[in-house]
Amino acid sequence: MKLSHFDDQGKAVMVDVSEKPDTLREAVACGSVSMKTETFRLIMDQKINKGDVLGVARVAGIMGAKRTPDLIPMCHPLSLSSVRIDFIPVEEKCRIDIKATVRITGQTGVEMEAFTAVAVAALTIYDMCKAIDRSMVISDIHLVEKSGGKSGHFRWKGNPETF
Amino acid sequence: MKLSHFDDQGKAVMVDVSEKPDTLREAVACGSVSMKTETFRLIMDQKINKGDVLGVARVAGIMGAKRTPDLIPMCHPLSLSSVRIDFIPVEEKCRIDIKATVRITGQTGVEMEAFTAVAVAALTIYDMCKAIDRSMVISDIHLVEKSGGKSGHFRWKGNPETF
Amino acid sequence: MKLSHFDDQGKAVMVDVSEKPDTLREAVACGSVSMKTETFRLIMDQKINKGDVLGVARVAGIMGAKRTPDLIPMCHPLSLSSVRIDFIPVEEKCRIDIKATVRITGQTGVEMEAFTAVAVAALTIYDMCKAIDRSMVISDIHLVEKSGGKSGHFRWKGNPETF
Amino acid sequence: MKLSHFDDQGKAVMVDVSEKPDTLREAVACGSVSMKTETFRLIMDQKINKGDVLGVARVAGIMGAKRTPDLIPMCHPLSLSSVRIDFIPVEEKCRIDIKATVRITGQTGVEMEAFTAVAVAALTIYDMCKAIDRSMVISDIHLVEKSGGKSGHFRWKGNPETF
Amino acid sequence: MKLSHFDDQGKAVMVDVSEKPDTLREAVACGSVSMKTETFRLIMDQKINKGDVLGVARVAGIMGAKRTPDLIPMCHPLSLSSVRIDFIPVEEKCRIDIKATVRITGQTGVEMEAFTAVAVAALTIYDMCKAIDRSMVISDIHLVEKSGGKSGHFRWKGNPETF
Amino acid sequence: MKLSHFDDQGKAVMVDVSEKPDTLREAVACGSVSMKTETFRLIMDQKINKGDVLGVARVAGIMGAKRTPDLIPMCHPLSLSSVRIDFIPVEEKCRIDIKATVRITGQTGVEMEAFTAVAVAALTIYDMCKAIDRSMVISDIHLVEKSGGKSGHFRWKGNPETF
Repeated sequence: MKLSHFDDQGKAVMVDVSEKPDTLREAVACGSVSMKTETFRLIMDQKINKGDVLGVARVAGIMGAKRTPDLIPMCHPLSLSSVRIDFIPVEEKCRIDIKATVRITGQTGVEMEAFTAVAVAALTIYDMCKAIDRSMVISDIHLVEKSGGKSGHFRWKGNPETF
Repeated sequence: MKLSHFDDQGKAVMVDVSEKPDTLREAVACGSVSMKTETFRLIMDQKINKGDVLGVARVAGIMGAKRTPDLIPMCHPLSLSSVRIDFIPVEEKCRIDIKATVRITGQTGVEMEAFTAVAVAALTIYDMCKAIDRSMVISDIHLVEKSGGKSGHFRWKGNPETF
Repeated sequence: MKLSHFDDQGKAVMVDVSEKPDTLREAVACGSVSMKTETFRLIMDQKINKGDVLGVARVAGIMGAKRTPDLIPMCHPLSLSSVRIDFIPVEEKCRIDIKATVRITGQTGVEMEAFTAVAVAALTIYDMCKAIDRSMVISDIHLVEKSGGKSGHFRWKGNPETF
Repeated sequence: MKLSHFDDQGKAVMVDVSEKPDTLREAVACGSVSMKTETFRLIMDQKINKGDVLGVARVAGIMGAKRTPDLIPMCHPLSLSSVRIDFIPVEEKCRIDIKATVRITGQTGVEMEAFTAVAVAALTIYDMCKAIDRSMVISDIHLVEKSGGKSGHFRWKGNPETF
Repeated sequence: MKLSHFDDQGKAVMVDVSEKPDTLREAVACGSVSMKTETFRLIMDQKINKGDVLGVARVAGIMGAKRTPDLIPMCHPLSLSSVRIDFIPVEEKCRIDIKATVRITGQTGVEMEAFTAVAVAALTIYDMCKAIDRSMVISDIHLVEKSGGKSGHFRWKGNPETF
Repeated sequence: MKLSHFDDQGKAVMVDVSEKPDTLREAVACGSVSMKTETFRLIMDQKINKGDVLGVARVAGIMGAKRTPDLIPMCHPLSLSSVRIDFIPVEEKCRIDIKATVRITGQTGVEMEAFTAVAVAALTIYDMCKAIDRSMVISDIHLVEKSGGKSGHFRWKGNPETF
């Protein structure tokens, strides 16, 4: 068993994908932001008439996906084909779930782009609300599904609550 | 109660800090990455002789803190004074805890920089190990402590397990 | 009469501001996007119920202001204190006017940051609507007001129609 | 009629181009910077012996085209094949016209890259000359021509004065 | 004889590669950092137990290769397929040699990416050690080998000492 | 003797400068690009009538200085006060020497910014000329002078040939 981003002497490398074929690939990641009741209410209300926290977070998440190779050292720079972000408010838990779906026709997968989109959207929700709730928690960022590469189809088998 | 990043008509703004004094400010954030036993072992072993996952993640986290204003829409661009990242392996849980400490002498706080450092370090651990463990989960990213601004000292009062 | 960004031999330089005092400075720039009637209507309607073109453009403009030193070669990297963007729909002209206000306590002015915010917000409006209207025109980007530096207060004396 | 960057619920998305074929695409955009007579003269003279405003603006515009996906939220990151910028001095109007031509072999068009090149070149001209002329105006940024995508050939039919 | 990045009137352009075929290309560049004996010893020792200068420099070099189009004005933005960096300590000279190998399947070569990787890794070594040795010198950055493009195979024929 | 960018356990850190006073600091770095006679001639001639290699390289170097914290992992993000780049053609050696001078009023020095400016300018000269001369060599990048910090004044005492 071996970590692919290190060579035989333990040196970090950006792995060579130059001879892999271009295939259609998709990755879905998710995560959640938990908060106080009043913060949750304010976000839901703002959406309608006083400011759109989730709208700003969606833009940030999509732009964040594009910055993945600037942030994650061994990630390949990629020409992403599509990024979308969905927010699923879970009222009884005062939690906003975030789902990012990224697609590409390319030589390598887009898991990290989906993760980064989720993380940046979550951080943005925190930033937009931190003046009223410093105790928000970002949790449960994980891969939901991945398809299209040589490593085959992956489907998350964990806790069904989030996705 | 009002979200500070929106004005009275609900328009997003980068809030005005131009008349605030420069003060010494510090923020500490943390988070964790949970993984399979063999992944945890491999990271711990690699550290010694076959590649340094945490070393790469530390560099990524520190660089990530500097990219915060590029990622989080309403964050001010800041001249950070210091960033440090600590990893605390929790063997019995197969979990790596991540703590980021950011300092500045400036007009606004550095919470988001500490959060971004944690998130980017966590995403990098995922990326470096994903070939052997796609089911890792990033969780519990929260503010531990914050001092030095007008809003006073904040100390996390939640779950004592992580920090 | 001399261009400040060139030295005596005509070489481009980032001019030296190291001995200038920190003062509170503000710059206001504006510009406009003209479009077909139906595009204008769609933007105004979308704002209410089907997507928020101006919300996305506002986030882009604020983030764009922060990228100014990456884009404009001789601009100093600056710790901006505040950025805000206002959109003024001019219904009878099917035109959206854009106004950006940037503040800093620093050694040099923020005109270019205000201009860049306007330009990026305008480009984003174009991008969001180009599928239905390729003939939109971005015009009249100019400085409205500037205060706080050694060069004194500037107030635009041109065409009163926009600002 | 629908804005392509929003889904059916009005959420912003980076539209999916993963199944579109790679084709050769070109976009041409233009714009202009109007200024005082002496500013125009100085730029024209400087070109010859005391500093090259347009040379700096050309480099900035080409580099700006490459930053388009960092600036415009829903733009795809693209491997541009070519960027060129032409300046056309219009002496009787004391105006510099700017034309940017961008090409790619790819899945989506490069209009926004051509627009961004024009805007950044125009902003740079402003920045290089602002010490002597704060009243310059950037105007008339529009698409001149576009070819190679599914939406067919577009040719600007407006005001013949600029292009 | 003509510089390819200028057109017939001497204007800088990003040259058009839109009709070139995708081929597998590789470039190898190298360079060196010379230092005092004790600095060299410290780097070699640190590697083992007190901090990993070369590990940090390797991450920086790989990330630097990805920033090439942001830094070098006429470079095309590229989807790099692989980047690796090797350090070769030359004990008798108190010198660390750096070799970067970059691959792509694309329309243009990756020499500048290999050069940038070497330069950024070298600058990082300097930065990490400058507190104890300000007189380090970075030298001999050159192309070692290049293959896969229309211009044919290039093999460095100079000084055999470094590579 | 200790490397300042590592803590006592050998972990990389961005060192804490939050309590250091703002002082005026300056750093001067230099380096050189050696080339074939005809390449050198072409650059010198182009300057006059067919394209301005050094003009493009100067813009790239100044912009590169601003990207230093994005490239060098442990560098602080700084509000640079001034950057200038001089090229000194050394005809008898077919070499272009590059000198970068960076100033700041700040809490930490700007050596790395001066180095990065030299390196990016040198890489750009290579890029602009590589179609006619792949064997150019970048050498002798070193610190010439540094003043203004606690570590005192540094003046290079090496080879007098370059600076």
